[in-house]
Amino acid sequence: MRENQKRRGFLKTGTAVGAGLLLSNLGIAGENKTNPVSGEEMSIWDVFEKRRSVRKFKSTRVPETHIEKILDAARSAPTAGNQQPWKFLVIQDKSKIEELKKECIAKSMERAKSKKDQTAEKLKEKEDKANTYYGDYLSAPVYVIVLTDKESKYPSYNHHDGPLAAGYLILAARALGYGTVFCTDSIPEDITSKVFNIPDKYVRICIIPIGIPDKWPESPEKMKWDEFVVNDSF
Amino acid sequence: MRENQKRRGFLKTGTAVGAGLLLSNLGIAGENKTNPVSGEEMSIWDVFEKRRSVRKFKSTRVPETHIEKILDAARSAPTAGNQQPWKFLVIQDKSKIEELKKECIAKSMERAKSKKDQTAEKLKEKEDKANTYYGDYLSAPVYVIVLTDKESKYPSYNHHDGPLAAGYLILAARALGYGTVFCTDSIPEDITSKVFNIPDKYVRICIIPIGIPDKWPESPEKMKWDEFVVNDSF
Repeated sequence: MRENQKRRGFLKTGTAVGAGLLLSNLGIAGENKTNPVSGEEMSIWDVFEKRRSVRKFKSTRVPETHIEKILDAARSAPTAGNQQPWKFLVIQDKSKIEELKKECIAKSMERAKSKKDQTAEKLKEKEDKANTYYGDYLSAPVYVIVLTDKESKYPSYNHHDGPLAAGYLILAARALGYGTVFCTDSIPEDITSKVFNIPDKYVRICIIPIGIPDKWPESPEKMKWDEFVVNDSF
Repeated sequence: MRENQKRRGFLKTGTAVGAGLLLSNLGIAGENKTNPVSGEEMSIWDVFEKRRSVRKFKSTRVPETHIEKILDAARSAPTAGNQQPWKFLVIQDKSKIEELKKECIAKSMERAKSKKDQTAEKLKEKEDKANTYYGDYLSAPVYVIVLTDKESKYPSYNHHDGPLAAGYLILAARALGYGTVFCTDSIPEDITSKVFNIPDKYVRICIIPIGIPDKWPESPEKMKWDEFVVNDSF
């Protein structure tokens, strides 16, 4: 597989270094830290508070330096016994994203057609909905598929390590002004496996779009504070 | 169960609000944002870079306002369909932590005794090691057990939502100057279930100590940058 990887410039910047050196080694510690829209650096508390799940994006390009910073944050996540079982498939090729969209719409329509009592009118309506839904969902300039490797050192902990890295990726993206969403079944795993030729040894955790939101959604209603917390014992 | 919960002051501060209002509603948005040691606020990039897994702590008390901020960040994590399946069991009762330590050491010694060819000398050595190991691990002033509820709205996504909240909790703690570790099997689940009377409907994701580190560990060696990234397709 490795020989088929297309390597961009940013893939050449890293060496085997301690996490404490990662950002400085990338040579970008002093720049590109700011929100590309506001130009200001967000505090971590603002990042937690203002993160939203975004499903429609502007086409504005995401600079490579931002993608680097976002993935560097992702790989700084806690990982069992320092195993680092992650692979980040970064998709920027518009034709690939278009192919993904077509496959998602086709699968959606297959499901619709297999249902009883379908009419031409209902199917047309379903098709319009699928076009809008996936047109929005797949409007971002960058997608990252977060994978974990079944052949990692401690694979029984990959189900923790995977979401941890994805969660850190999402926060880093928000800190730079981008919207994301932790997407699973909306973009079916069998489709991404096929379109991106993902080897069987990887488990897909999620696929995450990264882009400037068409608009920032409102926060959904949250549960009451004391619903979450128990003190000392049940 | 609910009537058995001991509620501290900070449990009364919240109401059902959007996440965008969480921090301000807690009335602590403008204070306690800083690292208690350095007095300075860390950037999110520093937090990613300087987070470490810590397994030995000073006994320094963690203020309630910090616990609030940390849990508030945890519950801001992405969650499938806004289901928020989390319960955070916050343990500050020293006698409970002592009980947990004794149970962990006892289980460790049971395992040792069940092995063949044990001598009194080997067992003494094992006991000393277990005392040191759990004495360090359980030296923090606060522990949070992150649980997810099997009866949540979309339980098949709890295996993502759980680690996401735990990961956000860990970052928030680091931003305030605290060490943590995403601990699983080192503190066995059957022991925490027993000591804290955790109902069967909860799945334990991890147990996380929060405290000022005895010292900050060095970063472990990290994989090469290009080991993590694949562009556009395998």
